[in-house]
Amino acid sequence: MAYFKDISNIQYEGPQSNNGLAFKYYNPQEKVGDKTMEEILRFGVAYWHTFTYEGGDPFGAGNMQRSWNHYTDMDLAKARVEASFEFYEKLNAPFFCFHDVDIAPEGLTLAETYKNLDIIVDEIERHLATSKTKLLWNTANMFSHPRFVHGAATSPNADVFAYSAAKVKKGLEIAKRLNAENYVFWGGREGYETLLNTNMKLEQDNLARFFHMAVDYAKEIGFEGQFLIEPKPKEPTKHQYDFDVATGIAFLRTYGLEDKFKFNIEANHATLAGHTFEHELHTARIHGMLGSVDANQGDTLLGWDTDEFPTDLYTNTLAMYEILKNGGLGKGGLNFDAKVRRGSFEQDDLFYAHIAGMDSFAIGLKVAHQLLEDRVLEDFVDRRYDSYNSGIGQKIVAGTTNFKELEEYALGLTEIKNTSGRTEKLKMIINQYLINTLK
Amino acid sequence: MAYFKDISNIQYEGPQSNNGLAFKYYNPQEKVGDKTMEEILRFGVAYWHTFTYEGGDPFGAGNMQRSWNHYTDMDLAKARVEASFEFYEKLNAPFFCFHDVDIAPEGLTLAETYKNLDIIVDEIERHLATSKTKLLWNTANMFSHPRFVHGAATSPNADVFAYSAAKVKKGLEIAKRLNAENYVFWGGREGYETLLNTNMKLEQDNLARFFHMAVDYAKEIGFEGQFLIEPKPKEPTKHQYDFDVATGIAFLRTYGLEDKFKFNIEANHATLAGHTFEHELHTARIHGMLGSVDANQGDTLLGWDTDEFPTDLYTNTLAMYEILKNGGLGKGGLNFDAKVRRGSFEQDDLFYAHIAGMDSFAIGLKVAHQLLEDRVLEDFVDRRYDSYNSGIGQKIVAGTTNFKELEEYALGLTEIKNTSGRTEKLKMIINQYLINTLK
Amino acid sequence: MAYFKDISNIQYEGPQSNNGLAFKYYNPQEKVGDKTMEEILRFGVAYWHTFTYEGGDPFGAGNMQRSWNHYTDMDLAKARVEASFEFYEKLNAPFFCFHDVDIAPEGLTLAETYKNLDIIVDEIERHLATSKTKLLWNTANMFSHPRFVHGAATSPNADVFAYSAAKVKKGLEIAKRLNAENYVFWGGREGYETLLNTNMKLEQDNLARFFHMAVDYAKEIGFEGQFLIEPKPKEPTKHQYDFDVATGIAFLRTYGLEDKFKFNIEANHATLAGHTFEHELHTARIHGMLGSVDANQGDTLLGWDTDEFPTDLYTNTLAMYEILKNGGLGKGGLNFDAKVRRGSFEQDDLFYAHIAGMDSFAIGLKVAHQLLEDRVLEDFVDRRYDSYNSGIGQKIVAGTTNFKELEEYALGLTEIKNTSGRTEKLKMIINQYLINTLK
Amino acid sequence: MAYFKDISNIQYEGPQSNNGLAFKYYNPQEKVGDKTMEEILRFGVAYWHTFTYEGGDPFGAGNMQRSWNHYTDMDLAKARVEASFEFYEKLNAPFFCFHDVDIAPEGLTLAETYKNLDIIVDEIERHLATSKTKLLWNTANMFSHPRFVHGAATSPNADVFAYSAAKVKKGLEIAKRLNAENYVFWGGREGYETLLNTNMKLEQDNLARFFHMAVDYAKEIGFEGQFLIEPKPKEPTKHQYDFDVATGIAFLRTYGLEDKFKFNIEANHATLAGHTFEHELHTARIHGMLGSVDANQGDTLLGWDTDEFPTDLYTNTLAMYEILKNGGLGKGGLNFDAKVRRGSFEQDDLFYAHIAGMDSFAIGLKVAHQLLEDRVLEDFVDRRYDSYNSGIGQKIVAGTTNFKELEEYALGLTEIKNTSGRTEKLKMIINQYLINTLK
Repeated sequence: MAYFKDISNIQYEGPQSNNGLAFKYYNPQEKVGDKTMEEILRFGVAYWHTFTYEGGDPFGAGNMQRSWNHYTDMDLAKARVEASFEFYEKLNAPFFCFHDVDIAPEGLTLAETYKNLDIIVDEIERHLATSKTKLLWNTANMFSHPRFVHGAATSPNADVFAYSAAKVKKGLEIAKRLNAENYVFWGGREGYETLLNTNMKLEQDNLARFFHMAVDYAKEIGFEGQFLIEPKPKEPTKHQYDFDVATGIAFLRTYGLEDKFKFNIEANHATLAGHTFEHELHTARIHGMLGSVDANQGDTLLGWDTDEFPTDLYTNTLAMYEILKNGGLGKGGLNFDAKVRRGSFEQDDLFYAHIAGMDSFAIGLKVAHQLLEDRVLEDFVDRRYDSYNSGIGQKIVAGTTNFKELEEYALGLTEIKNTSGRTEKLKMIINQYLINTLK
Repeated sequence: MAYFKDISNIQYEGPQSNNGLAFKYYNPQEKVGDKTMEEILRFGVAYWHTFTYEGGDPFGAGNMQRSWNHYTDMDLAKARVEASFEFYEKLNAPFFCFHDVDIAPEGLTLAETYKNLDIIVDEIERHLATSKTKLLWNTANMFSHPRFVHGAATSPNADVFAYSAAKVKKGLEIAKRLNAENYVFWGGREGYETLLNTNMKLEQDNLARFFHMAVDYAKEIGFEGQFLIEPKPKEPTKHQYDFDVATGIAFLRTYGLEDKFKFNIEANHATLAGHTFEHELHTARIHGMLGSVDANQGDTLLGWDTDEFPTDLYTNTLAMYEILKNGGLGKGGLNFDAKVRRGSFEQDDLFYAHIAGMDSFAIGLKVAHQLLEDRVLEDFVDRRYDSYNSGIGQKIVAGTTNFKELEEYALGLTEIKNTSGRTEKLKMIINQYLINTLK
Repeated sequence: MAYFKDISNIQYEGPQSNNGLAFKYYNPQEKVGDKTMEEILRFGVAYWHTFTYEGGDPFGAGNMQRSWNHYTDMDLAKARVEASFEFYEKLNAPFFCFHDVDIAPEGLTLAETYKNLDIIVDEIERHLATSKTKLLWNTANMFSHPRFVHGAATSPNADVFAYSAAKVKKGLEIAKRLNAENYVFWGGREGYETLLNTNMKLEQDNLARFFHMAVDYAKEIGFEGQFLIEPKPKEPTKHQYDFDVATGIAFLRTYGLEDKFKFNIEANHATLAGHTFEHELHTARIHGMLGSVDANQGDTLLGWDTDEFPTDLYTNTLAMYEILKNGGLGKGGLNFDAKVRRGSFEQDDLFYAHIAGMDSFAIGLKVAHQLLEDRVLEDFVDRRYDSYNSGIGQKIVAGTTNFKELEEYALGLTEIKNTSGRTEKLKMIINQYLINTLK
Repeated sequence: MAYFKDISNIQYEGPQSNNGLAFKYYNPQEKVGDKTMEEILRFGVAYWHTFTYEGGDPFGAGNMQRSWNHYTDMDLAKARVEASFEFYEKLNAPFFCFHDVDIAPEGLTLAETYKNLDIIVDEIERHLATSKTKLLWNTANMFSHPRFVHGAATSPNADVFAYSAAKVKKGLEIAKRLNAENYVFWGGREGYETLLNTNMKLEQDNLARFFHMAVDYAKEIGFEGQFLIEPKPKEPTKHQYDFDVATGIAFLRTYGLEDKFKFNIEANHATLAGHTFEHELHTARIHGMLGSVDANQGDTLLGWDTDEFPTDLYTNTLAMYEILKNGGLGKGGLNFDAKVRRGSFEQDDLFYAHIAGMDSFAIGLKVAHQLLEDRVLEDFVDRRYDSYNSGIGQKIVAGTTNFKELEEYALGLTEIKNTSGRTEKLKMIINQYLINTLK
């Protein structure tokens, strides 16, 4: 193991870091409630951002300093596998995630691509046998290659649909073999550039057909992981069909797929869609469809997917609040779909960034747990809706009243008394818990 | 009739207006295809923006110069009815729309409010008997009064739910009596300010219960108008439950209401949700749920609902394209949910603005009609998806293939040939039709 | 004093509030560095949001429960003054701010308006004589009345310019009399709705003429407060001329006013302009033009001015960082240009909200102070730019080199070595200080 | 000439294109007023988007089909020069623009880069000798290479400053040699990722030093082209120092550079900054600083720089309106800083896209010209501000009044009469001219 230096050298400036420890808040064995941190915080490392990403952006070339950069082709692919497992171990990361093209280069033919994949999957399998780290999910990249320029399962070209089917078929076989807990669909180009040239109905019908085939094939091979759809509103497309969780629910229900899929929710995708992260988690949760999380953050003053490491303690606290209310994420996890800024090009930044994310979520977990323990929000909400527990409210909820009775009731009301929603007080309570919980 | 001056004085500057006509493009009797303009363009005047709105904005007081402003209370309400029918006639507007509180002031009690409403509804009924103008839809304002501060059907207060039920019950009775073609729900405060104090699941369950009761009551009284939901993502709420069409579909399908409601789609709400107007129309259309249209426009560089009169010819053309593809709007129409800018406070501006909207949609209609006649987009799209008409594509669409066969097919592909989506060319074709159609 | 109840009843839920104190972090006499909190945190209460605002929004009527609501006209104005000074005392607020129309109703004529103002200014003066609270700044509301529909100093109507001049003249006289520390200009409608009807050059020239006259008149009457311009990009206008700090600098320098004005920077206006709050503070600071602060926050997922109470600890910390680096705000202060949410309509919410803001800024101050004490960011930045302290860098900064010499130097470089910007690490350091400073 | 096929094959679908001509509206020799279209519409082709861009986006690889793609290295560079001049001739494009790295690959050393550049500049010079096409401007790409990760003239690394100086020095020499009409600075990374690690004051001081050196060197070598700054608010940076025109003016005035630079204004950058394109043109114009234009368009529902070809006739009309009011662009031009969508990957799309842009601007020119001929907006505006031509208004403009006199005047006013701004009517007039001008 030689791709990364000793993590004990990774320290923070300032008087509070004299203890020489990189992690300050994340302690895998620490109990939060009746579970340990590592049981709740099923962190995943994103292979593409951490081991494959070279630092390019729309205005700049690759610049990341990586100790495996001197390799090429399959040697590079193998080196990345080595480096990745070393990284997981040093970081004590329980999970990782990948797209097919992250782990192995595409060949000139599909058959050759399969061959490359098989070689690398062998390598990964060998590492998994002895590693504590597991595969949270894998997926097929069906957006980078020029063949996917107009989409994959929604391509106007049936050959591309077929090619995509082959990739997902292979992906499911890999998922089965590597014991992936989930299989993810992010339809990067399943959308449109302009309605002027688009048959949206046919494209969405085809997407549904594709999902049904995937479900069928998983059953056929006995893959029992959870299927996840990852919503995103746009980018690279003008419009992506899986705009947000609600749009995903509409789609799944329209095509009879609502029992087969849950959602993989990404913070940055939520804000691009005009929602808070917690809104998307909450929406999925109350529909019983919160599957997994892409733990990152965006910059709401910028209009593109920045995929930053999640350090915002408000967001992370409210995310963990939803996750705890969900009884955890089940097979899902917290995948850091996050990349170091292009200016953070040194290899150490990979540690700083992941530790920042893990520590931030550990704080968020503890704060959220305490909020729930104290039922400070829950009691407030219960009191707020108390009128539905008796009288006319109870009849409304029970479905035993109608407009006529309600009108009669309303005509008899002399005063309607509402109470303050107390937004400002509740926000300050969050601040108090944030500042005080970890004392 | 004395509230408005002669419309023939309403003219545009410049050499092209020497003909002395206010309308340049909208001609009710002109045939476009096999229908007249007035059959296709079922324009509605929004009572609230045109007769009730006084010009206030968050930083300014009312300033609109209106010839009925010297009246108060019920006299004012009656004067507005008079003025409104004079306006419809002068403008040759086939429809109008209103909220209950637009037409009559609320009383101290619900009973008194009913009484005021009844008086004004009598007046309107009397006018309708001799007017060519009809009621496109009415609705209940359940967002302005303090009692609705936390929502109406989604209020945490059961009394407010009951009060709202009474208002909609009355609204349906008015709709029945005035032969409204539709009944609209815009849930201005059916959403939340912060998740911290919100039971979203209960609120959405209650909203569904409310809709079911409305459907039941309409059936009971024999109201046969179309129920419409009007999506909006936010404002005044932080988040509104009817975010966009897709969110509406998810909601309706979740609660078994998908056959009872269609959508009333507003351009400005679409852009606030991050969509184009045509996207929302298209989405509703392919789900068979395009009911009616709130014809206005926003300013995408501003982040709030500006409700401007719809003069953008691109948007109006693409809107009419969707509407023509939908076979028209059925019972629906094009309601100008638009207000003159606060700086356009003279009474003449009401004419200029409506004529601008009507003329712009007349242009849009003619351009869209010609595009469809020439099948210029349709043929392009058909060719683009041609691979689904034979071979493996046909099997995909027929649902007679699977991942195994598709993989086998994909493994046999030597080359995948895509073709250009031609976005730039298609955009220029739109320009050519815009410039040339009305020659 | 009877308008507000005992503040000791204002408490937060949860186990951490057992001490029975409303304030948890703000302690006026506590030293932070060599100054007390109250010396640094010159909090101001905004008269308009706290005492005049009734709760209306574009979709809803006034709903605020206020103990002075039963008064009308001048009695109401007087009651508000009474209530305001009671509130300042209970809250221990050192400053307040007002627009002319906040404190006294406008009369039918300007003379009558003056008279009303004089009566209320007498009342305020009387209170100021014995109160610990002082006037941070006053200003003239030149945007609400219909006469300002097209602007004030930038109105196309010279009468409006003259009327505005009279209002500011009176405002300066009031400022002088009440010992205001500053006089603020927020040009709510000094901008345009559409360029199609606007002579921007003339409007900006006139605005500059207006400012010069204000400066002259202040000198004439011996008012020595600081003049402040408050940038905002838009709302209610489509475009406001004081878009942001940089735009303000361009304007002031173009018209030779750069030495006469500083900026009053509002957090929510910053984000509406696409900037962070700290960016605007920083920009003003490095130009020596940071005058005062409107301490609030917006919601970056909403596109309008929400004027929320500032509870975001990241923003408040970074704001206090800039303010401490500025050596404080001088005559300026932290005015809570913030309103309780419409759903927070009970009178207690005024206390909860202000306490939330004050406590949050107290936390921000302590965290920022510790960051500066430890020089954790400063040292990082100094090291990062160290190459400008010697060699070619020193010559660049000294202005003693040129393109030829630099080219020669560059041709001799064999390698250019950059170092990581460490964004993720720095963000985590902020988190660490946030969590740990108040231990 | 063999890189492009015959342009006469480039046609539009539909009945209106039977004339077999690609251009429908742009006719170089046609007179518009007293000048020909080609004299006014100084179109430029962007070398990078047209000949160098390979089709990559953040989620996809290069996919553009280009007839020169089989070449590599310097052969590729030479082939692109050949292709470019063939393209200019076929398109009848009067100008082109390039960054240094667009035309020649960087070498391992700066000296080698110079050598590569010299070879290609020789090629270009040879073509220019016989071509009708000229160089509108060139610039140095100081954002793509990893060395510029933290900026160029604003880098924290003095070596990078020096290297940048060398690149611009070389660029000015090339500009001089190729008779460039302008030299452009777009500071792609002259900004910051986070304020936490940034010394903004030093960075901006250095940027100003850099500009002064550039001005000095241009004088030294006798380059008489116009210096242009191209504002952009963000992307790839979190914040770019040349945010918009106003920010640029503030910068230039702060550092005494306002007489040396004008602005190169890009439509898409304007909208990213929250402005309309015409706003930025107008602002530069009234400061005498409108230099040149990057003619493209963005998508205001997307938050990144899409660099689309400019087909929006509203925007192009209002842009040409500003340009005509400016008396043209002088040395500047209309550079298509626009790329075909990734889905428009066929070589023909380059023609369709440029023709769409040129035709759209030709339409815009004719409409704008007619608007000015008819003085329809100008007369409206003149009337609107008429009160400044006499009485108190005249004194205001002349600077011969003061607050005292204005107050006296205001006290004497019995009524202030404003007139409608007529926004809706003016927007419809634009529509009328759009539809009718080209009849």
